[in-house]
Amino acid sequence: MAILVVGSIALDTIETPYGRREDILGGSATYFSYAASFFDRVSLVGVVGEDFSKEFVELLQSRCIDTEGLQVMEGKTFRWVGSYEGDMNTAKTHSTCLNVFETFQPIIPEKYKDSEIVFLANNDPELQIGVLSQVNNPKITIADTMNLWINTRKESLVRLFGTVDIVIMNEDEARMYADTPNLIGAGKRILDQGPKYLVIKKGENGATLMSQQFCFSLPGFPVEDVRDPTGAGDTFAGGFVGYLAKSGKVDKASLKKAVVYGSVMASFNVEDFSLDRMKRLNDREIEGRYLEYVDLTNFHF
Amino acid sequence: MAILVVGSIALDTIETPYGRREDILGGSATYFSYAASFFDRVSLVGVVGEDFSKEFVELLQSRCIDTEGLQVMEGKTFRWVGSYEGDMNTAKTHSTCLNVFETFQPIIPEKYKDSEIVFLANNDPELQIGVLSQVNNPKITIADTMNLWINTRKESLVRLFGTVDIVIMNEDEARMYADTPNLIGAGKRILDQGPKYLVIKKGENGATLMSQQFCFSLPGFPVEDVRDPTGAGDTFAGGFVGYLAKSGKVDKASLKKAVVYGSVMASFNVEDFSLDRMKRLNDREIEGRYLEYVDLTNFHF
Repeated sequence: MAILVVGSIALDTIETPYGRREDILGGSATYFSYAASFFDRVSLVGVVGEDFSKEFVELLQSRCIDTEGLQVMEGKTFRWVGSYEGDMNTAKTHSTCLNVFETFQPIIPEKYKDSEIVFLANNDPELQIGVLSQVNNPKITIADTMNLWINTRKESLVRLFGTVDIVIMNEDEARMYADTPNLIGAGKRILDQGPKYLVIKKGENGATLMSQQFCFSLPGFPVEDVRDPTGAGDTFAGGFVGYLAKSGKVDKASLKKAVVYGSVMASFNVEDFSLDRMKRLNDREIEGRYLEYVDLTNFHF
Repeated sequence: MAILVVGSIALDTIETPYGRREDILGGSATYFSYAASFFDRVSLVGVVGEDFSKEFVELLQSRCIDTEGLQVMEGKTFRWVGSYEGDMNTAKTHSTCLNVFETFQPIIPEKYKDSEIVFLANNDPELQIGVLSQVNNPKITIADTMNLWINTRKESLVRLFGTVDIVIMNEDEARMYADTPNLIGAGKRILDQGPKYLVIKKGENGATLMSQQFCFSLPGFPVEDVRDPTGAGDTFAGGFVGYLAKSGKVDKASLKKAVVYGSVMASFNVEDFSLDRMKRLNDREIEGRYLEYVDLTNFHF
């Protein structure tokens, strides 16, 4: 199935115990589309400034990601400066300059409007809803969000969650959105608002998939050298949505496997800065780590 | 296999969002032995004061736990006052009165000395080592510990870890002990010091079992109503060690299943205060939740 992603493209400056990198390629749509491209066709809608390197566009194109929807606007590309310490589970933001992303109005090219899967990366929920109004009856719609919108655009989020098939959030966001400390209770409240499925990302503790009918939990993959966790959540989403597109089904079995592939892709991504690990990744390694996940979690045969 | 446990027996006063209970039965050896009793024979060594209710002793005996090693000393029973808020992942200690536990010198009754499995619940590592010197060649030895001893008795702990077969710790303790923020790295350092297996408890995020040869991770069981998490770690240990005793083997397959049974028992324990949920528990429910765990984690058939 053809995947459409709408989200941010950024230049990140990041410091972790493993070093500092300036103006490296980042952004939710970037990480998502790169990971998803290992599974199926991806089209990307986003915005960059005039300072955005042609090499970065070519890198995405090298994975057959369709970049026709990439708008180049006067001004600078979205920039984020952050750092991680200790267990690296939480980013410390030093500065965020939205630049051209501040006035980004997603325009979906005609040829993308029949995409069968639409992934709405974290963004103002009004813009996410606007994207949905531009596409023709996609088979699966998935939305991510963040604490900022839970605090400032709750009503829009409620409308969005009532429209999409799958919501992806991290665990703190789920607790905050549902206003309850118990994660399972929070998940149930979110499911009551509309989405058929909820995926809760838990960083190094894996992910939980919930529906009204079943619950699936996967522990995190044991990565000893986490060099840069930036983009792990969007890479997870890329593997998750990519696998769903490839399988062509949204049933219990394919959703569970999609969570595993999401976790596999995220576990590679954190092994290096930006897309550096993903650039060296191949299908054999992905399948190998999927099998390692079987061994890591299997206790019944 | 016969199990010997040496640890604390306490009277706890606990407040959670679900209420307050005074002087309820607690302590590591209590929770451990009650959970383990669902799987195999347990003998308990511990100390209580003259204020300890006969009913509590009878409760343990009702599960066929051998209490000959329960010393009754002049004075009061160990008392802990604590509370939990929010996600209830961390206890706030209001007071700890060791009372008779302060001068506790474990004496292993003659009839326990041939126990095949010895569980050293959290205690001063010098006392834990002292227990090992009193038993005759057990087949499996397992030790738990806590941050206090990592800070104050590191050298003794290193000696203990070099002696026992299995170490059980929670994740923060593992990071603290190994002095490294990455959990997998911490686990490897601990395994380098001697124990064949390390079990890292991660509360609502399940548990990870590590050896030099393999790694097994289990997510937490989705419990919506966590009423009192006190004793969850010791109940986990009781299910884990109990299953190993029952299976009679310490191989990869039985260790993995033991982690599942440990998590199953802990998931029941947190559903009510003290042993209240465990008192209502039966084997059918344990097997039912084991199967729910299969469904929760299985993605490969």
